[in-house]
Amino acid sequence: MTVLVLTCEEDLTADIVVSTLQDLGVPLVRLDPADLPGRVALSAEYADNDFHGYLKSGERMVSLGSLRSVWVRRPGTPGARAAEQSAWITAEAEQALYGMLTSTQARWMNHPVAAAQARYKPWQLRLAHRSGFLVPATLVTTFPAMARQFAATHQDLVVKSVSGKHPGDPPMVLPTTRISPDTDFSGVAAGPTLLQQHIPKEADIRLTCVGDHLFAARKKADPEEVDSRFAHQGTWEPVEVPDAVHRSVNSYMSAAQLAYGAFDFAEDPDGAWWFLECNQGGQFGFIQLETDQPIAQAIATWLAVEP
Amino acid sequence: MTVLVLTCEEDLTADIVVSTLQDLGVPLVRLDPADLPGRVALSAEYADNDFHGYLKSGERMVSLGSLRSVWVRRPGTPGARAAEQSAWITAEAEQALYGMLTSTQARWMNHPVAAAQARYKPWQLRLAHRSGFLVPATLVTTFPAMARQFAATHQDLVVKSVSGKHPGDPPMVLPTTRISPDTDFSGVAAGPTLLQQHIPKEADIRLTCVGDHLFAARKKADPEEVDSRFAHQGTWEPVEVPDAVHRSVNSYMSAAQLAYGAFDFAEDPDGAWWFLECNQGGQFGFIQLETDQPIAQAIATWLAVEP
Repeated sequence: MTVLVLTCEEDLTADIVVSTLQDLGVPLVRLDPADLPGRVALSAEYADNDFHGYLKSGERMVSLGSLRSVWVRRPGTPGARAAEQSAWITAEAEQALYGMLTSTQARWMNHPVAAAQARYKPWQLRLAHRSGFLVPATLVTTFPAMARQFAATHQDLVVKSVSGKHPGDPPMVLPTTRISPDTDFSGVAAGPTLLQQHIPKEADIRLTCVGDHLFAARKKADPEEVDSRFAHQGTWEPVEVPDAVHRSVNSYMSAAQLAYGAFDFAEDPDGAWWFLECNQGGQFGFIQLETDQPIAQAIATWLAVEP
Repeated sequence: MTVLVLTCEEDLTADIVVSTLQDLGVPLVRLDPADLPGRVALSAEYADNDFHGYLKSGERMVSLGSLRSVWVRRPGTPGARAAEQSAWITAEAEQALYGMLTSTQARWMNHPVAAAQARYKPWQLRLAHRSGFLVPATLVTTFPAMARQFAATHQDLVVKSVSGKHPGDPPMVLPTTRISPDTDFSGVAAGPTLLQQHIPKEADIRLTCVGDHLFAARKKADPEEVDSRFAHQGTWEPVEVPDAVHRSVNSYMSAAQLAYGAFDFAEDPDGAWWFLECNQGGQFGFIQLETDQPIAQAIATWLAVEP
């Protein structure tokens, strides 16, 4: 049975997983949905109470019934490289491809439906509570009065985006920024704003969860730095996962129906890990590079399991 | 506890459900996500392992913890009526609103995650098979040779869109169209195409499922007419649901995790009902108008149940 890897052409991280699968002798097809229609072709017949489908990428052909797993890594938008591009071709290609693939018995890392739900940050925070993580007090609001009250209560604050990346071209990552409790909050009426209690940070923790395998890495924090994505100092080192965190991660992943998740924590001066977010599509290449943790190998092994 | 109705301002069908809820004495808030931020405001605080949120629409304020149900009817795009519109405001408002609402214990008609999956037509066809419906033989393909082979096997064919509406402005509904098996199919390489065995139709059947309640209506078909959405003759009349269809509908709704679905069937000359599609957001006002079936009342009753 075959592993399907959905990603763009230039993806060095995917290359490591692919070569591990090749070493394991597992058949695989790698394709970019942006190449449908064109380099990628598909066909599925629904007849006689049964379903037979095929995907073709270049000269490789795979039967949908023989897919053991699908890895949604960095897929392009269906139709994006079609000879005649249009919203219509994108809609038709997207429906055809994902409609067929979600009709199969394959295991997903991650299933598009679970991934869509897991992207909602307010939902993440609530699930993090339910899973037993420590979660910094957080407010999402369009009420200036509530923002002022939250700031007065917590004093030491950061502001973040609710949705993640700013949809510029190219998309911008907005840094988490510390703000004064005396800020003029009248502007929150113009757009939902996320305020969070600032956790004084000894270190950043990145915990990558692949099925049942947890890989945690720690990077000592500069006390002046708030958003580690914009820090250029320090190196990631492997760290043990506390038992309570391990249980919470399992509980979160199971409730969210995710096979892969990249958790960010802030480690406070007492050594406690505070949940910041879980990115269901988070990068892991930079962690593996610095820590030698075999994350790509764990992904390959997960994908290789027969359903 | 309160019912939340998400729909646009001018929605006569929603008006009937709302007035039924008012007759039942059930508190409700109706709002259009397009009015966030602005007329609609929100706030949620995640602290002390708990979650408290509020939605405000005009002068009405509702606590998220007191929501018994959410009806996703015809909601506008979040941010669409913001003073300063942008993709950024839409992303932030969408994440904040649906992230909060999916964090509640409310029952959904339909949950956005289930709705997103249920829109995939290839997935619908497969689930229809599994649920025991009769399903016309269907092909979704970009291979001209497979289209030719399917046409040679079935001879009497229709072509449909895979994704539903054409994203023009205004969106266009593309009619299902009969085609000759001798058609030149080379064009399917340019975009996935859905071909289906044509079922000779005695009548169109629209079955509206609301929780455990099924309302079926029948309209005698003109033998020359293929797509009933473009027919102007005939009236819808109530019809009994065959037991086997009833069981299949229950099985489909349960697997799809839907509370509401509008099924379209073709009734053949032997009286058998062939599954064409299940629209999780399908209209019912026109059916209720002609048949007097109390669909809006069933929706109100479903929404009114305490969780």
